[in-house]
Amino acid sequence: MNRDFVLKGNIVYAPVLGELFIAENAFLVVRDGKVQAIKTEYQGEAIDYGNRLIIPSLCDMHVHASQYAMAGMGLDLELLPWLLAYTFPEESRYADRAYAEEVYEAFAKALLRAGTTRACVLGTIHTDTVLLLMDILERTGLTAYVGKVNMDRNAPKPLCEDTKTSLGETRRWIEESLKRYTHVKPMITPRFIPNCTPELLKGLGELAREFGVPIQSHLSENTGEVAWVKALEPDAAFYGQAYEKYGLFGDGVPTVMAHCVQSPKEERALLAKNGVLMAHCPDSNSNLASGMADVRAMLDAGVLVALGSDLAGGCTLSILEAAAQAIRISKLREAAGGGRALTMPETFYLATSAGAAFFGDGPGFTPGSPLHALVLDDSHLLGTRDLKPAQRLERCIYLSRDVKISAVYANGKKIR
Amino acid sequence: MNRDFVLKGNIVYAPVLGELFIAENAFLVVRDGKVQAIKTEYQGEAIDYGNRLIIPSLCDMHVHASQYAMAGMGLDLELLPWLLAYTFPEESRYADRAYAEEVYEAFAKALLRAGTTRACVLGTIHTDTVLLLMDILERTGLTAYVGKVNMDRNAPKPLCEDTKTSLGETRRWIEESLKRYTHVKPMITPRFIPNCTPELLKGLGELAREFGVPIQSHLSENTGEVAWVKALEPDAAFYGQAYEKYGLFGDGVPTVMAHCVQSPKEERALLAKNGVLMAHCPDSNSNLASGMADVRAMLDAGVLVALGSDLAGGCTLSILEAAAQAIRISKLREAAGGGRALTMPETFYLATSAGAAFFGDGPGFTPGSPLHALVLDDSHLLGTRDLKPAQRLERCIYLSRDVKISAVYANGKKIR
Repeated sequence: MNRDFVLKGNIVYAPVLGELFIAENAFLVVRDGKVQAIKTEYQGEAIDYGNRLIIPSLCDMHVHASQYAMAGMGLDLELLPWLLAYTFPEESRYADRAYAEEVYEAFAKALLRAGTTRACVLGTIHTDTVLLLMDILERTGLTAYVGKVNMDRNAPKPLCEDTKTSLGETRRWIEESLKRYTHVKPMITPRFIPNCTPELLKGLGELAREFGVPIQSHLSENTGEVAWVKALEPDAAFYGQAYEKYGLFGDGVPTVMAHCVQSPKEERALLAKNGVLMAHCPDSNSNLASGMADVRAMLDAGVLVALGSDLAGGCTLSILEAAAQAIRISKLREAAGGGRALTMPETFYLATSAGAAFFGDGPGFTPGSPLHALVLDDSHLLGTRDLKPAQRLERCIYLSRDVKISAVYANGKKIR
Repeated sequence: MNRDFVLKGNIVYAPVLGELFIAENAFLVVRDGKVQAIKTEYQGEAIDYGNRLIIPSLCDMHVHASQYAMAGMGLDLELLPWLLAYTFPEESRYADRAYAEEVYEAFAKALLRAGTTRACVLGTIHTDTVLLLMDILERTGLTAYVGKVNMDRNAPKPLCEDTKTSLGETRRWIEESLKRYTHVKPMITPRFIPNCTPELLKGLGELAREFGVPIQSHLSENTGEVAWVKALEPDAAFYGQAYEKYGLFGDGVPTVMAHCVQSPKEERALLAKNGVLMAHCPDSNSNLASGMADVRAMLDAGVLVALGSDLAGGCTLSILEAAAQAIRISKLREAAGGGRALTMPETFYLATSAGAAFFGDGPGFTPGSPLHALVLDDSHLLGTRDLKPAQRLERCIYLSRDVKISAVYANGKKIR
């Protein structure tokens, strides 16, 4: 297949936090699937997207594939009762291959429709259907870290693993998936401290180092959860230290921690020191009454931050909508006396380049990076013709439900 | 045209705050455009919507038609600079009939697409294009109160009226529109205290009483605005008293005040006492960093509350999305130590029945009320077949961007 081509359109990306690179009517030159250059003039043949915007595709740094069929359900509850009443019963169904296949196929299509091409995805405890999920994501052309979830305590029976089995299955799954895929990789995924015994956590930390596999989990989402962790791990000064104790908190192993809503100053410092990426999931944090994460304080402390949908705590896979909601929540924090709100260019960086870095790619269309791109069609919105690309990008974020994604490229290939 | 028909489907509405009426596979009998009864059995011919949900159509109690073309723009700003940089220049264009016609036609279509059939709509100062807007809304089949905006101070030149002209034009517009329409009515609309001299406010209060026409405006949206009003009206103990002084704050005249984010306890009490309806616009309040309105305290104080999109402070005309955002914001308030969050059934009431009452209609499908209904198609969402109507309604609120509105009825007529 041809991995050498040129796209023409209005090119926008976020090279660093808070800045936009903009090239109007420009050419994005792709060679061997990688961005080679952005040029204002080009003589050869180009795929002409006219007046449309070409932006990097989106990165979703925390999404539960196994909750796709329960999006928008049970949201009058908070995190812990919601897990018991809705999430755990739903996740128990993933022992069933036919059910898993139906939902995971739909999930992969929906991710693509939303313009996400790189994601950190959570499955369930069930090794075989997690491999199925990985098959489907790979076949769809997406780049993903995927987690087989580990749980060996405080879980309903069908989801509660024996510790040795949990570790053994994780090893089998890692070995199998490291062989099987090109763009999809395993990611060690303890559900959260309350669902994993110290023995399991320790074993998972060792597996991460043995195989050089990254880690993802949940951190400081909800006050009830934080209190529970404090009771389970009384010698940890804060939640993150409990993960660190077991070798599950960055420090050489790429790690994503979702939420970080309740993180105290010391936890922010450790996140920064250990290079742990915070997946900020503003929709979920409001749906589950978790609170308003202090993203500004995280950024100021040097923490890596990127966006996540956290479906089904979040209701939509649209990371453009997550960006809008991140801005909104930061404004509400500011209005309540908190730090400076996030700007549109900052949040666009969190939605794209910040996640790309976790996957080892440069920001946006940096030369040398594999092409991950979306073509956005806003021509049907009133007034588009009078606007500059930055204003149009802002509208695409706020009006994402009305904007059309007319093409999706991942790893240098058009996949939609 | 036939105004006698029967709809069949899963019927859900909110008879009172916090409760749902549910009738599965039931018949909604309409006679002369009004709901006659809901029946579990019916022998005659029915329009069969199968397994779909039939709910009351939505009410948008605060929406700027004249800002439709600038949705999603300039939202890194707060209210007052945003008005100066974006809104006022845009509204100045509505002296131009061709421009107004283009946008207002698109606005009416979008309102219908969003499932809103009753709305309190703001135009601009321009009488003739406001009449054009009313023509379009009436022709579309919508029910609306529409406001010609009044502004005679602190406004850019093209939007700043001479006081006498403003009052004279308002009289001409009221007289004309009271004659011209069936379902569209005029609503007196001082922009807000900072844009209206005492003489203008006094005159508008007198016109409201002379013609028995309702009133709408903005109240206690933003701290900067509240401070400005305090400076302009130092003898008013709080913002609402400034309107009351001029006869523009309920007390026999149906009145809608948008936002009420900063309202102190005394203002809540006056809103309740005078029967003023608060249009809660959560999307706008977060986009413009206004803050989190205390809807629970308003309801507890006996204030009438219904939802508004406040486009273009808000980004979407979807009142289902406004409902989801109202729940989210109330949860964030609760998480920050505020009152009990809004539930889905409560918010569904605010999105439908609470607004209907302002238009003189009973809640939802109460017998005797004109039929305003939506048929919602959620059949493409995974898992729908296993759910009860209340769960499906919750999903339609949270996943409104994915739900299809397959039919819209207004005043007993299918209009889409």
